Amino acid sequence: MNVNGRRYRTIWLAGPDKGLVRIINQLLLPHQFETFDLHTLEDVCRGIQDMYVRGAGLIGAAAAYGMYLAAREAGDASFDEDMVHAGELLKHTRPTASNLAWAVDAMLGLLTGRQGRRAQKIEAARFAAEAIAAEDAQSCRKIGRYGLDLILAAAERKNGEVVHILTHCNAGWLAFVDYGTALSPVYAAFDSGIAVHVWVDETRPRNQGAALTAWELGGHGVPYDLIPDNAGGHLMQHGMVDLVITGADRVTRRGDVANKIGTYLKALAAKENGVPFYVALPSSTFDWNMRDGLGEIPIEERDPEEVRWVTGKTTDGRIESVRICPDSTSARNWGFDVTPACCITGLITDRGIAEPSEQGILKLYPEQRCVP
Amino acid sequence: MNVNGRRYRTIWLAGPDKGLVRIINQLLLPHQFETFDLHTLEDVCRGIQDMYVRGAGLIGAAAAYGMYLAAREAGDASFDEDMVHAGELLKHTRPTASNLAWAVDAMLGLLTGRQGRRAQKIEAARFAAEAIAAEDAQSCRKIGRYGLDLILAAAERKNGEVVHILTHCNAGWLAFVDYGTALSPVYAAFDSGIAVHVWVDETRPRNQGAALTAWELGGHGVPYDLIPDNAGGHLMQHGMVDLVITGADRVTRRGDVANKIGTYLKALAAKENGVPFYVALPSSTFDWNMRDGLGEIPIEERDPEEVRWVTGKTTDGRIESVRICPDSTSARNWGFDVTPACCITGLITDRGIAEPSEQGILKLYPEQRCVP
Repeated sequence: MNVNGRRYRTIWLAGPDKGLVRIINQLLLPHQFETFDLHTLEDVCRGIQDMYVRGAGLIGAAAAYGMYLAAREAGDASFDEDMVHAGELLKHTRPTASNLAWAVDAMLGLLTGRQGRRAQKIEAARFAAEAIAAEDAQSCRKIGRYGLDLILAAAERKNGEVVHILTHCNAGWLAFVDYGTALSPVYAAFDSGIAVHVWVDETRPRNQGAALTAWELGGHGVPYDLIPDNAGGHLMQHGMVDLVITGADRVTRRGDVANKIGTYLKALAAKENGVPFYVALPSSTFDWNMRDGLGEIPIEERDPEEVRWVTGKTTDGRIESVRICPDSTSARNWGFDVTPACCITGLITDRGIAEPSEQGILKLYPEQRCVP
Repeated sequence: MNVNGRRYRTIWLAGPDKGLVRIINQLLLPHQFETFDLHTLEDVCRGIQDMYVRGAGLIGAAAAYGMYLAAREAGDASFDEDMVHAGELLKHTRPTASNLAWAVDAMLGLLTGRQGRRAQKIEAARFAAEAIAAEDAQSCRKIGRYGLDLILAAAERKNGEVVHILTHCNAGWLAFVDYGTALSPVYAAFDSGIAVHVWVDETRPRNQGAALTAWELGGHGVPYDLIPDNAGGHLMQHGMVDLVITGADRVTRRGDVANKIGTYLKALAAKENGVPFYVALPSSTFDWNMRDGLGEIPIEERDPEEVRWVTGKTTDGRIESVRICPDSTSARNWGFDVTPACCITGLITDRGIAEPSEQGILKLYPEQRCVP
């Protein structure tokens, strides 16, 4: 999407022979926009581990590009062996990121156990990595197109008045290669001239809404206001939200959604106040082996320091962390919560909009009928 | 309550002739505990305006003590006139604080239009101010006693296992003269040996939970954990909350509750998960002229900078503010939301526990039957 009028993806190949991977350094956002070059497999591993890049789709693409750089570094005789080793290194950077493992395995499947010259294999690795990144962007673009219909319908119901969309956390283009999931319909609507406005939940404790969603919406020119996570109920009670759209970290086959902690509270308020609540996700986010989200999805508990400390920019331009509670305070920090399917209006996927039930989802994914 | 083993109120008279008002400087909490002396009416006005003292009950008591200092400063011939002027100055410090105006008017009614020597009037002012402060503490203590029964019942249901109580914002002793409202039952339970644990919502955007509730619970020795405002739904889904108790800023005659923004979201989660949701309030918080909270209670919109900036303590001990969003971000900041009576289990008042309905409330307040 656009950053101050210029088109960007979150990751791309650069250099005279497309020999390096260029990324947006997300650690500096929203306070500084800088690209950063990854020259080696080791650079890519560090970039993923230290969260220069983050977000399901983007991590997958970064891993694929990392395998391409690994192919460039691999020996002729030891090519397969070197690639397998590279894949292991990449998988260790963020062990729970399922797109990462998927991308590494896809690259390995394509590149190992083959005859051919080393140069051809490198060329194949580049094509494959570019294809994986393109597929991520493509799938997000489709989500945008299906979601656009919902926003269009809301705009028609409101006779062209501004459509207010609330979102939680960052499920925008910064988390993918382009477009994003929850924000893809918003960009599609904005780009086609529909008057939209986004309520951006700040998303404590890591403030991805305040830092990333605010930054990317602002960069593309979409009107928005930042609100505390506490405000959504009040807005919905007063008819100030037409639609909620969030992303998802994992969705079960009957449509229960694990997403950033706090999503469930917004879903309850939406249900109570008759506000449509949509979850946008690429097909890869479904976990076909699970039904009952609340009982089956493991919820990661993260470092309590994320709750106790807040990072931002001081008036004199320094990036600084401040503790917001007594030194002796202990905190708890669950990363996600589960929103049961009954609180969800629909799932916006790259295959269309699914009703949040096993039957509804399987209509779009008939090949998953017999799995568990 | 206790601060590191020593008993405190939030405000008291000190000096050899009880000629000054001593307060806890709440601006420095939770990072520093310091008392601060107010010597003149002007000091008290500044203390209220600049929020050295805050919270409904405490502001009322501070205003009463301010009128006592004003009496000491008033001329003999111009006593009444000087007192009326002092009352106006005090009322202007926080125009929407209803306890403040109430305390000023109560003091004026007692002290003006009377014969007598100046010294007698000053003595009367001191007694009246002390009585207003004592009444605030007394009313909070009663709330604690009634609320204790609820916690006791929960402890019995759990066969003595720890009772987990979730609270939002700060409705503890720091907001009153002593005990507090929502936290008064918690202190009563803790002091009588019941095993309790409090989930403290950080309460964005001003973080009163992280700063004040955490500090006062810790100081008194009550076990607690700080959580992001987003976490309550997850905790309730997993049976980790036995009781929610919050304070209130205004309660209508049918039991709709205006309280710190975000309270409504917790009430919805409590209702959905069968968790009892109580609101604790002194009788003075009822607004007998209102029925429909959502339609009638005006919701104050506050400075958006409170959302954009977070204040805390740096690793090297400085108090610093950091901006958590892009410089260009606009934010919105509603201070309160309204929780409809239907989401509330009961109202813990200084007269007992009321069912949240007009009929239920009037059982405890029969004198209000005929008012509007």
